Amino acid sequence: MASRPENVGILAMDVYFPASCVKQEELEEHDGASKGKYTIGLGQDRLAFCTDLEDVISMSLTVVQSLLEKYGIPPERIGRLEVGSETVIDKSKAIKTCLMQLFQECGNGDIEGVDSTNACYGGTAALQNSLNWVESTAWDGRFALVVAADSAVYAEGAARPTGGAGAVAMLIGPDAPLVMERSFSATHMAHVYDFYKPNLASEYPVVDGKLSQTCYLQALDSCYSRYCAKFEKRQGKPFILSEQADYAIFHAPYNKLVQKSFARLVYNDFMRNSSFVEADVSSKLQPFADLSLAESLVNRDLEKVAQQVAKKQYDSKVAPSTLLPKELGNMYCASLYAGLATLLHTKTEILDGKRLLMFSYGSGLASSLFSFKVCQGRTPYSVSQIAEKMSIAEKLDSRIFVDPKTFVSTMHLMETRYGAKDFIPVSSHSTLRPGTFYLTQVDALYRRSYSRKATASKPETIASNGTNAAA
Amino acid sequence: MASRPENVGILAMDVYFPASCVKQEELEEHDGASKGKYTIGLGQDRLAFCTDLEDVISMSLTVVQSLLEKYGIPPERIGRLEVGSETVIDKSKAIKTCLMQLFQECGNGDIEGVDSTNACYGGTAALQNSLNWVESTAWDGRFALVVAADSAVYAEGAARPTGGAGAVAMLIGPDAPLVMERSFSATHMAHVYDFYKPNLASEYPVVDGKLSQTCYLQALDSCYSRYCAKFEKRQGKPFILSEQADYAIFHAPYNKLVQKSFARLVYNDFMRNSSFVEADVSSKLQPFADLSLAESLVNRDLEKVAQQVAKKQYDSKVAPSTLLPKELGNMYCASLYAGLATLLHTKTEILDGKRLLMFSYGSGLASSLFSFKVCQGRTPYSVSQIAEKMSIAEKLDSRIFVDPKTFVSTMHLMETRYGAKDFIPVSSHSTLRPGTFYLTQVDALYRRSYSRKATASKPETIASNGTNAAA
Repeated sequence: MASRPENVGILAMDVYFPASCVKQEELEEHDGASKGKYTIGLGQDRLAFCTDLEDVISMSLTVVQSLLEKYGIPPERIGRLEVGSETVIDKSKAIKTCLMQLFQECGNGDIEGVDSTNACYGGTAALQNSLNWVESTAWDGRFALVVAADSAVYAEGAARPTGGAGAVAMLIGPDAPLVMERSFSATHMAHVYDFYKPNLASEYPVVDGKLSQTCYLQALDSCYSRYCAKFEKRQGKPFILSEQADYAIFHAPYNKLVQKSFARLVYNDFMRNSSFVEADVSSKLQPFADLSLAESLVNRDLEKVAQQVAKKQYDSKVAPSTLLPKELGNMYCASLYAGLATLLHTKTEILDGKRLLMFSYGSGLASSLFSFKVCQGRTPYSVSQIAEKMSIAEKLDSRIFVDPKTFVSTMHLMETRYGAKDFIPVSSHSTLRPGTFYLTQVDALYRRSYSRKATASKPETIASNGTNAAA
Repeated sequence: MASRPENVGILAMDVYFPASCVKQEELEEHDGASKGKYTIGLGQDRLAFCTDLEDVISMSLTVVQSLLEKYGIPPERIGRLEVGSETVIDKSKAIKTCLMQLFQECGNGDIEGVDSTNACYGGTAALQNSLNWVESTAWDGRFALVVAADSAVYAEGAARPTGGAGAVAMLIGPDAPLVMERSFSATHMAHVYDFYKPNLASEYPVVDGKLSQTCYLQALDSCYSRYCAKFEKRQGKPFILSEQADYAIFHAPYNKLVQKSFARLVYNDFMRNSSFVEADVSSKLQPFADLSLAESLVNRDLEKVAQQVAKKQYDSKVAPSTLLPKELGNMYCASLYAGLATLLHTKTEILDGKRLLMFSYGSGLASSLFSFKVCQGRTPYSVSQIAEKMSIAEKLDSRIFVDPKTFVSTMHLMETRYGAKDFIPVSSHSTLRPGTFYLTQVDALYRRSYSRKATASKPETIASNGTNAAA
C-alpha cells in the first residue's frame, strides 16, 4: 500500500464578493439606530450583498472559475469538489452539481464530493472532508477544491446589519504552504436552537442572538480545552495562547464577537494556569477566578476586563485577519476563510513558520478549533502567490457603495425572488465586475441559467443550463 | 507517522422504517390505475410512510439509538457521525445536530461530521467521507457512524406510488466484514434538472421522470466504464460482470429501474467485448450493436431484450437485494443501503469472499459505482451478526397495513405539517413500535421535541429539546 501523502493543506485560494455594498455608518442613520451601534457595537464597517443578478450558485461559479484560471489549473486535474453553504436555493440539488457546468467542456465528470450543511460550519466540514480524501486510499493524485459560500440576509430589524455575502475557494493537496495540523483538531457538537431556518419559504433565519453568542463562546471553550489537551499530548508541552498561536482567526458573525472570543481564550488560559498569562493580566482577571462556568459566560464585567487585557494580543494576533469580515459582513460558511484570506493578504511576507489558530462555528451547533502551519518552499504554491492572485485590495477598491434606501429596496426585491420561478433579473449589470457569473433567467420550471460577464481576454459566455441529460 | 488502518468498511448496520404502509395493489385500484401499473410497471409491492408522529429526525434518532444499543457500542466510542438526507426540515440546522441529543448524557460532544446533501446520493457521500476519515491522520481510533435517511413523498399523481420512507445506520471502522474496495470506486457528476426541490414551501419535488431515468442509466454507463478501467489497471484483468460481481445492488427509485439497470450493465459488457457475455446473450444483443449511445438509452426493443437475456443473472445477483426497496418504496438516501441490508438478510451464510457491486445515484446529479468485499473473521463483527441484529423479518411482520384512503388523508395532513409550527401531532401512537422516537411537539418557534416509546426494558424517555445553551 502506498504511503500517505504528507503536509496536506491549502495550496491556493481565491475569494469573491459582490461589488454592491452599503456603509454601516449610513445604515445606522437610516435605521434610526444610535450612532456607533453597528460600527462600534457590532464592529462592522460595510456590508456586501447580492442583487437579483447574483446568488450562492453564481458566486461559487465565479470563484471556482477564477481560481482555475488564475492558477492555471486544468479542470481535469480536479478529482474532488465540494461546497459548504447554508444558502438553500434547492433542497435537493447540490450547488456542487451546478458547478459541474465548469467541467463539462473538458469532459471531467469524475469529481467526487457534494454539499455539506450545517449553518456557518459547512465550509469547515467540506475542508476536513477534502483533507481526509487526499489522505485516504481513495485519493487518485488529483486536487480537491473546497468552496465556502453564502449570502446572509436578515429580516428588517436588529439583525439586518449582520448580513453579508461572499465565497472562498481553496485548492487542496499535499506539500501545501498552509498545512493543517490534523492531530490537534478539536470538535464540539450539540443540539441547540440558537439560529436556524425552519421557515422554508423565507430566506431569513430564526435567531436567538443572546443564546447564539453564549453557545458560540461555550463551544469555543470546549474546543479550546480539547485542542490544548491534544496539543500537550502530542507535543509534550502545554499549549499557551501567547506563545503557541501566532495568529487567531474566528468565524465572524460580527467583529465584536471576535473581540470577545479572543478575550475568552485569554480568560481560558488564565483559568487553566495563571502563569499562562502575563502577571498584570492575571491580576486583572483574578476577581473573576471564582465565577462558575455559566456565570463567566454572561458576566459583563469579565467580558469588559478580558477584552481590555487581551487588547494588545488582539491587535497583533487577531486584527490582521478582520478586514474582509468587517468590510463585507457575515459570509456564513465563507466568513472564517475570508478571515484567513485577509491574513494572507495583510501579513504576506512574514507568515513562514507561523501557526494560525482557526475557530469555526455553525449554529445548531457544530464547531471546530484547528490550526495551520505555514510551511513555504516545497511547491510552486506559496502564500505570496495566494496574496497576489486574490487581489483583495483591487476587489475592495472596485466596490460600488449604494445608499441604504437602495439596499433596503434590493432586500425587498430579493424577498420576491426567493423560491420564485419564471423571472428575469432586473438589476443593473454595471454592478458586476468582469468575469463575474450572473443569473440570466429562472424559467417556469425553476431552472436557473447563468452567463459570465466578459473580461478583457474572454468574451461573454453562456453556461450550460442543465436542461439536457447528463453530459 | 502511524500507518493507515486497513480493511476499512462497515462493521455493523441497522435499518428502520415506519410501521405504517399501504399496498401498491390497493393503491392502483384506489387511483383508478390499470391493474399491474404499480406492481408490475413499477415493480413495487408496498409503500412505507410517516404519519405526523415521525419525520427524518425521529427515524434517524431511532436507528442510531437502536444500533448503539443492539451492538453494545458506548456512545463515547463514536468519533464521527454524519447524515445523508434530502428531507429538509430546516435549511440550516443539520439533522446531525439533532442526533447529538443521544450523546448528551455521556457528555460526548467531540463528534465530527455534519449532513451531506445531493438528492438520493447524500448517504453515499457520507459513507465515503467516514471511510476517508478513518484512513486519514485525523482519525482518533473511534468509530464513525453514517446515517442515510429520508421520507420520500410526492404530490398526487403518477409519481406518488414511488414514495417511501426509511433510515439506515452503518458503523464504520477498520477490519470490517464489509470492506469497501476503494481503489475501484468510480464517480460521475453532472449538472442536470431531472429531479429537484426548488419549491421551498412544499415537500414535493419537481420531477422529469423520463429525463431522470435517462440520466440514471447514462450515469451508470459512465461509472461502470470508469470502474472497469480502474479494476483492470489494478487487477491486470478485465472486469466482467458475470464473473467478478457476485451481487449487484442499485439505488431503487422503483424496482423496474433496477431491472433495467442491471440489463444495461449486461449490454455494456456485450458492447465492451462480445465475449464478455454468453454466446446466446451475444447473439440476441447483436441487432443492437450499432445503435448510437443516445439511441441505446431510449430504444424500447433493446430495453426489452436486454432484460430478457439478463433475467437469469438478475435473479441470482440482483433479486436477493430487492426485498426492502420493493416492500418500503423509495427511501432516497437510504434506498441503496436498504438493498445492502436486504442482501445481508437473505444471503447471510453464503456471502464470505463475495463481491457486492453497488450503484448510488442522486439526481442533479451525483453517482458512484463501488464494491464491497465480504471478509469475515477478523473482528467480532460479522454478516450473521448484522443479519440477526437488524431483524428485518420481524420488522416487516410488525407492519400496519392501512387502506389507500387513510394513506391519502395522511398525505393531506402531512402537507399541512410541512414547514409548520405550533402543533402537536394527532396520529395514533399505536403505529409506533417499542423503542421508536416520535415527535411530541413543534412549538411556536418551530423547535421540535421528541420522545421515545417505551420498550420491554426501558421506560418512555424524553429527548433534550435543544432550547438550552450547548451542553
